[in-house]
Amino acid sequence: MNTVDLIVAKRDGGELSDEQINWFISGVTTGEIPAEQAAALLMAIVWRGLTGRELATWTAAMINSGQRLDLSSLDRPTVDKHSTGGVGDKVSLALCPLVAACGAAVPQLSGRGLGHTGGTLDKMEAISGWRAALSDDEFLAQLQDVGAVIAAATADLAPADRVLYALRDVTGTVASIPLIASSIMSKKIAEGTAGLVLDVKFGSGAFLPDPAMGEELARTMVGLGHAHGVDTVALLTDMDQPLGLAAGNALEVAEAIETLAGGGPADLIEVTLALAQEMVELANLDADPAKVLASGQAMDAWQSMVAAQGGDPAAPLPTAKVVDHWTAPVDGVINRIDALAVGVAAWRLGAGRARKEDDVSPVAGVRLRRVQGDRVTAGEVIAELHTDDPSLLPAAHGALSSALTISEAAPKPRHLIATRIADT
Amino acid sequence: MNTVDLIVAKRDGGELSDEQINWFISGVTTGEIPAEQAAALLMAIVWRGLTGRELATWTAAMINSGQRLDLSSLDRPTVDKHSTGGVGDKVSLALCPLVAACGAAVPQLSGRGLGHTGGTLDKMEAISGWRAALSDDEFLAQLQDVGAVIAAATADLAPADRVLYALRDVTGTVASIPLIASSIMSKKIAEGTAGLVLDVKFGSGAFLPDPAMGEELARTMVGLGHAHGVDTVALLTDMDQPLGLAAGNALEVAEAIETLAGGGPADLIEVTLALAQEMVELANLDADPAKVLASGQAMDAWQSMVAAQGGDPAAPLPTAKVVDHWTAPVDGVINRIDALAVGVAAWRLGAGRARKEDDVSPVAGVRLRRVQGDRVTAGEVIAELHTDDPSLLPAAHGALSSALTISEAAPKPRHLIATRIADT
Repeated sequence: MNTVDLIVAKRDGGELSDEQINWFISGVTTGEIPAEQAAALLMAIVWRGLTGRELATWTAAMINSGQRLDLSSLDRPTVDKHSTGGVGDKVSLALCPLVAACGAAVPQLSGRGLGHTGGTLDKMEAISGWRAALSDDEFLAQLQDVGAVIAAATADLAPADRVLYALRDVTGTVASIPLIASSIMSKKIAEGTAGLVLDVKFGSGAFLPDPAMGEELARTMVGLGHAHGVDTVALLTDMDQPLGLAAGNALEVAEAIETLAGGGPADLIEVTLALAQEMVELANLDADPAKVLASGQAMDAWQSMVAAQGGDPAAPLPTAKVVDHWTAPVDGVINRIDALAVGVAAWRLGAGRARKEDDVSPVAGVRLRRVQGDRVTAGEVIAELHTDDPSLLPAAHGALSSALTISEAAPKPRHLIATRIADT
Repeated sequence: MNTVDLIVAKRDGGELSDEQINWFISGVTTGEIPAEQAAALLMAIVWRGLTGRELATWTAAMINSGQRLDLSSLDRPTVDKHSTGGVGDKVSLALCPLVAACGAAVPQLSGRGLGHTGGTLDKMEAISGWRAALSDDEFLAQLQDVGAVIAAATADLAPADRVLYALRDVTGTVASIPLIASSIMSKKIAEGTAGLVLDVKFGSGAFLPDPAMGEELARTMVGLGHAHGVDTVALLTDMDQPLGLAAGNALEVAEAIETLAGGGPADLIEVTLALAQEMVELANLDADPAKVLASGQAMDAWQSMVAAQGGDPAAPLPTAKVVDHWTAPVDGVINRIDALAVGVAAWRLGAGRARKEDDVSPVAGVRLRRVQGDRVTAGEVIAELHTDDPSLLPAAHGALSSALTISEAAPKPRHLIATRIADT
């Protein structure tokens, strides 16, 4: 088989055979197919897309590039959640122990962040002593005992995705619905979960801002889940403004803990409970997530989960050396705080990475004091900017310079959960 | 500057700035930009194209990646010809000495062949002792003394093209009019010629079979020539059937010599004289190529050119160990002999390369005994298949299996020179 033939076929709008796709995914994973040929095919796929059959084969080949975990030995039903990522999206941190407390096993294998959206592992690593890497045995034992695990994917989980994603990241070929869908779903299917809830974000802070694109991605992923025997539901949720008040690693952990303790911002609670309800239903559990959250059992599961992975749930979270202020330029009512601008500001303060090899600051980030609908006066503090490096403050202020919409009229109320998709 | 920004901009249909293009061509040439990023941008260009301004900047950057030769010290006017390549296209071999004999200097820097179209250097190398590599001083001295040079491009002639072409060849990104036009024209402009005639082929044996695509390519190249002060004219010529009777290195040299000696196939003479007439006009020479050809002066120039480069014009050409026959399956009149099939057959017999590093056979190829319009009877020999390796014959016969169209009706006459393009 000849890689140029595959590239030319896709470039010209043709379909690849199952044999060609299997050969390509295998060759990319082993490195036998050079990166420049893989990059050219990926750009041709961004251009021409993949048919349903091509995508199914492509995703199956990615799963089969490693081992699909077998979680059937667990007594608990398995159900997981994946978010396409957003600004202030710390939902997993509270959701995972909450659904575990409802009786499920939540095998949340996560990644690190790149760009303005944070990664769940980066957030958890703000907790002193906590470690992301678990052996397969540790992973299974914790799933059985605690029910909640947030851990790093092992090298054998869809290794083709690791190679392809690293290549897509540097070749402008991330933005393709079939490539995004196969990347996410190959890992979640290989992880061994029986049920999966997808939180597909739209709005300025989302990876795909356009709701129609988000819906297409959601339907594509639900279809792939069903095709591989994973009961999959997607919620499309609003990421036009930050979720909750905090964007940044330790700041988000603090907000998740506050939520588990019965407090927390209303929008974060609403999204967390909606996703928990879907997960509990997929797991056929007779539990009410709101009651379990209020009972303190979710907090217990959180503490057990953190402790099981070496963290000290009672240790104070690290704090930034410098806290600067972002203030309102005029009097009026806040109509909108742009999620992307807040995400970029947190990133500029040190919370995120520009390149994979960068370190993230656990303490950096933005914490809002005012949100949509609040009346403010000129000079009033809208948000705190946290960082250890004050030289980063001007860039963060720059990112926020047009983030705020203030007017005399009250804003339209936010509709957080737009659509539920359970069929393709 | 960030390569991903360039890729994403072009992927999304945007325009690249002059600064971005110059930076990219420079980075590709030095190797600072990795091949996978360059491949992704090339595929995005295949998809989205280049605007006129982008293409002008791109081509200028390719020229400036090396040195533009200065031929102003010559007493003769300079004019060259480039063909997009075809099956049996040995025009350069006779044309270069013919136009030199008319009084011009023809600085023909050429390449080797890949796939079913042969390369001029591969053909010339069938001549015992002839060498393609000349120093700059040898090149200039021969241009002044003989007027005719066919030689290999030096490493400093548009080196960006060498890198980009090698990459395009393995990434399915050859088929793009702006990329083809900039590749051809950057080399021809850098070569220092004042005038240029382009032979843009269309039909099955051409690189771009569709005449409309050929015309677009021709207009694009004529525009680039004018923008760089090179007086450029294009002829669109028919490559649906082989040009002349021979396809293969020594076989084509023999046919070119036959033409210089006053014989040769009518179609080859027609195309050669049409191109020569354009070149003579661009060079403002008062000469009649047909008369110069008939006078024997073109043959003298050929012999001088071959001898100047170490070849023995009197030495016999090598011949193949095996000559097999391709015969007519039925009685009738030949309506068409498909150029692509003949080219592939010659390639399979050993005349061409599958990969750049392959050797070519000087003796292999196809020599037609019958052409369009000839009446044949079943079993009659249509062509000779020449090779040193009889195990290659079945593949060549396979390539020819549907090459022949025979009917009782006479074919429409061939119209070899379809269009002349002197403006954009």
